[in-house]
This record gives sequence, structure tokens and C-alpha cells, in this order.
Amino acid sequence: MQTLNLDLGNRSYPIYIGSGILSMKKILCQHIEGKNIAIVSNETIANYYQEILCKSLGEYEILSITLPDGEKQKNLSTVEKIYDLLVENHFPRDSTLVALGGGVVGDITGFAASTYQRGVGFIQIPTTLLAQVDSSVGGKTGVNHPQSKNMIGAFYQPKAVIIDTETLKTLDKREISAGLAEVIKYGLLADANFFAWLENNIVELLARNDEALIQAITQSCKNKAKIVSEDELETNKRALLNLGHTFGHAIEAVLGYGNWLHGEAVGCGLVMAAKLSNQIGWLNTTELDRIIALIEKTGLPTKLPKEIDRKKLKEHMFFDKKILKGELRLVLLKKIGKALITTDFSENALDDLLLNF
Amino acid sequence: MQTLNLDLGNRSYPIYIGSGILSMKKILCQHIEGKNIAIVSNETIANYYQEILCKSLGEYEILSITLPDGEKQKNLSTVEKIYDLLVENHFPRDSTLVALGGGVVGDITGFAASTYQRGVGFIQIPTTLLAQVDSSVGGKTGVNHPQSKNMIGAFYQPKAVIIDTETLKTLDKREISAGLAEVIKYGLLADANFFAWLENNIVELLARNDEALIQAITQSCKNKAKIVSEDELETNKRALLNLGHTFGHAIEAVLGYGNWLHGEAVGCGLVMAAKLSNQIGWLNTTELDRIIALIEKTGLPTKLPKEIDRKKLKEHMFFDKKILKGELRLVLLKKIGKALITTDFSENALDDLLLNF
Repeated sequence: MQTLNLDLGNRSYPIYIGSGILSMKKILCQHIEGKNIAIVSNETIANYYQEILCKSLGEYEILSITLPDGEKQKNLSTVEKIYDLLVENHFPRDSTLVALGGGVVGDITGFAASTYQRGVGFIQIPTTLLAQVDSSVGGKTGVNHPQSKNMIGAFYQPKAVIIDTETLKTLDKREISAGLAEVIKYGLLADANFFAWLENNIVELLARNDEALIQAITQSCKNKAKIVSEDELETNKRALLNLGHTFGHAIEAVLGYGNWLHGEAVGCGLVMAAKLSNQIGWLNTTELDRIIALIEKTGLPTKLPKEIDRKKLKEHMFFDKKILKGELRLVLLKKIGKALITTDFSENALDDLLLNF
Repeated sequence: MQTLNLDLGNRSYPIYIGSGILSMKKILCQHIEGKNIAIVSNETIANYYQEILCKSLGEYEILSITLPDGEKQKNLSTVEKIYDLLVENHFPRDSTLVALGGGVVGDITGFAASTYQRGVGFIQIPTTLLAQVDSSVGGKTGVNHPQSKNMIGAFYQPKAVIIDTETLKTLDKREISAGLAEVIKYGLLADANFFAWLENNIVELLARNDEALIQAITQSCKNKAKIVSEDELETNKRALLNLGHTFGHAIEAVLGYGNWLHGEAVGCGLVMAAKLSNQIGWLNTTELDRIIALIEKTGLPTKLPKEIDRKKLKEHMFFDKKILKGELRLVLLKKIGKALITTDFSENALDDLLLNF
């Protein structure tokens, strides 16, 4: 088992990564304060893992909250249902909410934990690769507004993140590839060695080799933890983590959410960011080709669907909530392992990319 | 004008206290980052002060959100309405929400600010004495759950608190007394000199003498700021600020909210806490009498309504959300200026107090 520490002063916490750690009672229990635990999960995941988890938590008073599957649950009324159950069951201030599931479950549960009685204990047990390497680490929690994704939320750090690679065994193949999009992102952002390692190990990863998965997740979380500890509230550097995401979010929105998985849109977004970086003379063509090759091998889209409305795509990019003072900032690549947040591209270059991609 | 600083590392902020500072453009503007401001207020307060404030903020894009008056607005659906307006008006991450009003407006606005796009700028402009000396300082924000008050919320610090004593001129006399209950609390808690000063200046305060008010508010905020800076998230010491409140909340709940003002219930709660402290041999009778005399002079109740159901009162105290591990903790007085959080009283002593008060 690997243990990383996310260093945030008195809000620091460990990230445990290993195979079978859901059954390790001691690891779980040291991060629980009172005697009340609510396990929030969704139907699919609860079926697979709730029993193992409840066994590890035998001595506590456990309330199971099972949400229907899917991103459409990620709204305020789901959070209200969680509040209702906690109040009904007299959950006190020293309760702990455990998120057992993917990014949707983690985001909802974290937001409920951050706002129930002004904040109770919170533990992340991500069960998808995407959540393990991205959303479960760093304290971004929240739900969607009917008009806009992730509009309502809080920065709220968990007490611990518990990543059991066993949970990846039941995951759909497409979801493994989608998770790997975020893994590749960390290599591109700040870790050229890791990118090279991924090029050499992509077959093992897709085959869900435990050792390879643990290494990829550990290295991803290490990279994320470093950036988050330097800029918890995303006032500057943390925005680097959006590499590929401004494109990706626009693709998801224009295609209609759920057509492509988030990670698939990010994969394509990474190629778009790389291509724009190359077009403006930052990233050299050899490295661009390496990026496209790895994304392709990972089973992710490297092209936009032909029919997608390019104008709408651009509009959506300019609506992205990360726009500061009306200016579109993108994360672009100087080279593999070095990204910058920049406005240093012409609108023409962007138009050109969108039209010809 | 007095300026205090609430010391919370990178979340520190100033508290300005003076007469007419709502018109001082410079003070306001230095705490605003972007160009979008939403002023959240209620009908009564908006009528009085919105114009002055908008004049001071002339160069910004201002969205006015006026809520109906009253505590019953303090719920999630009001917060949702605020989100809707912010999204509709494309409010970006560098927006600022300004709470112009009493505790209800401050609590709602603060919670909306803490959760819109995971946190935007927030300025408190409290316009009641109660909010000026209590709820606007320290970062407690939130709304009520249908079953329980203040169940949903966040700790979220404002960028500044702006206290203009001019706003107290339009306040109902009863609300001045209610605010003074919290002022007296600070003297009792930790500041015997301040308590003595209040005994000597209560007439001037009730007459709304500007100088006396500024001094009382400054000293109250100083005391509160000290405690909050030592225990922002109320893990221990901050609970001292609940002196009189476990009794007070129970009175409000059993009488039905709105019958007594919160400050009136707290005033009576302070006498009850003092009496129990005396009963268990902590507070001497001379000091108990001084406390009762000051609360009385302030125009606050020192007795429970005869008809109130004592059994329900006790039940409610045991339901208070601050109960840790099933044990009722109360803040009691060793002497004027020294309070402790304690379980060191018998249930008999509490029963005796409740029956005979």
C-alpha cells in the first residue's frame, strides 16, 4: 500500500492507495471521530461494496444512503434529501459522511458534509479511476445548477481518501480509458518522466494490472496533491489542472452530457490543447505526435465528432465559469511536462483549430 | 471610526465601526475584487439604506436582491433564488455579495457567497445591533432546516465587516435591548471591566448615544474576535459564546419563534445560566444580583413566561445540536468575566432551576 500526504496545514490528510484496503478496518477507523456514519453511495456501487465496507465499520451506527445512478442526481434536491435523513436520524456534529462511489457521489457527499451543521467529517472512497486520480483529491465538492455545471459547491477537504484498486475490477472498459485521460494530463502538465512511463505501460494499465494501476494512481495523486497544496482555492496555479478541460467541458455541453464520458471529452480536449500549443509555436511536432499516439492507444477520441457545431463549441468556451474579467484563459503546453495558463493566443488561432479539428 | 482586525491568517479581515461609514466609498471598495456586486437586503432595510450604498458603489455593476422580511426566509429555497439570479446575470467567480441587513440577511447571504462557484467575495454590512455585535463577525453562515435551526451552513469569513451606527437610528427600541443582550454576554464571558462599564452606561446606550454605541460595539467585537481567532471552527473555546444560548434557543423554540426576539430569549437565558451557576456554588449572590439588575435595566425579560412548558424546555435543551456524545454541556459562570463550558452540574439542579424560574 502507498500512502501520500496532502499538505494543507491543519487540513492535511492522507491518501491511501492499495489493493483490498476497503477491508482494512484500522485505516478507516482512525479517521472517524464520533459514532455516527452515513455511507452515501449509488445503486450499482452499493451492490458491490457496501457490505465489505459495513463489515469494516461494524462498531459504528451506520446509515446507508443509496442514490439512483447518474449525473442527473447531482443537484441541490439530492443534497436536501441527505440533510433530511441526517436530521431525521439525529446525526450530531461529530458525524462522518463517507462517499462510496464515483465523482458524482463524491461531489454530492462532500458538499453535504461541508454544509451539514457547518461541516462534519468526510471520507472519500472513490471507486472509479477518474474519481481516484482526480475528483476525490483536493476538496472540490458541489452540485450542478440547472443552467450550469458545478455552480454550487464548496472547497472542503476530506479527512482521508481511500483508494482500493479492487474496485476497478468491476469497472467498464470505457471508464478505465476515461480515467486514464486525467492520468495522462498529470504527465503533460508537470511530469515528463511520468508521461514516458505511461507510454511504456499503457497496455498493462488497460489490462488493469494492479501494480501498474497503483503506480499510475500514486503518481497522479502526488502531482495533484502538490498543486493543490500550493493553491487550495484555485486563485492561480491550481487552474493548471484544467488542461484539456475548457475544450472538454464545451464538447460535453454541446454534445449533450452523457454522450461522451467526461474523461473522453478531456482526452479529446488534451489533443486540442496540444494542437493549439503547436499551432502557436509552443509545443514541437514530435511531442504533439507522441501525445496523439498515447491518447489514441488509451482508447480515447482524438477527433471531434464531425457533426458537432463549432460555433457553439466556441461560445461555450467563452461562457466557462473560469473566465476572469471576460478574457478566455487556456492551459497550453510549452512542452510535455510544462504547462502555462495563458491568454497568449489569437482568437484566429482558436477559430482555426476549432474549424479544422 | 474604530478599526479592529479579526486575525485568521490568510482569512483575516477588518471590522470598521463608526457613524456614517456607509457613505465612505474608499472603505467599501478596497474589499471588492471584480466588477460585479450583488447587494442582498430585505424590504425594510433596502428602503432605508440601499440608495446610500449604491451611491458609494457607483462604478460597479450592481444587482439588487431584495428578500421579504423575516426569519422564515432563512431557508434553502431563498438561497436557490439567489443562485438563480447570479447565474442568470452571469456573475463570475470574482463577484462580491454584500449583505445589507440583520442576522437573517447576513446568514443567508454569507451561505450563498460561500457556495456560489465554491466561494465568492462577501462583505457584511449589519444594520441591527444584534448582527453588529454577534452574527456578522466570525463567519458563521447558514439557513434553517424545516426541523431544526441553523442546521445547514458553512464557516465562511467575510472580506470586511462594516458597522455604521447610523443604521441603529431607525431600529425599534425592543431590538436595541435585544442587541444589548449579546453585548452584556461579552462582559459576563470574559471582560469584567466591560460589564462594569455597561452598568454605568446602560442609559446612554438605550438612548442610542453614538459614542457609547461605538464603544460597546467595539468592545463586543474585540471580545468576539479574540475567541473566534483562537477557535474558528468551534471545536472548543468558541462554544463559550453560547452563554445563555442553550436556554435561549429552548425558550424560542417552545414559545414559538417570533414571540420573543432572539436577544430577549438570550437575555433571559443569561439570567438562567447565572442562576444555575449560583445554585451550584460557582457565582456569588452579589454578582448574580448585579447581572439580574443590568438585564432588567436593559429592558430584557428576567423571568420565563408563567405558562411555558418546563418539560418541553428541558427536552429542547437536550436536543440542541451542540450536544457532544449525548451529554448536555452548558456555559456557566465562575464569576462575572469568567465562564466555563461544563457538564459539572446535576440534572437535579437543572430541573430545580427550570421548575422554579
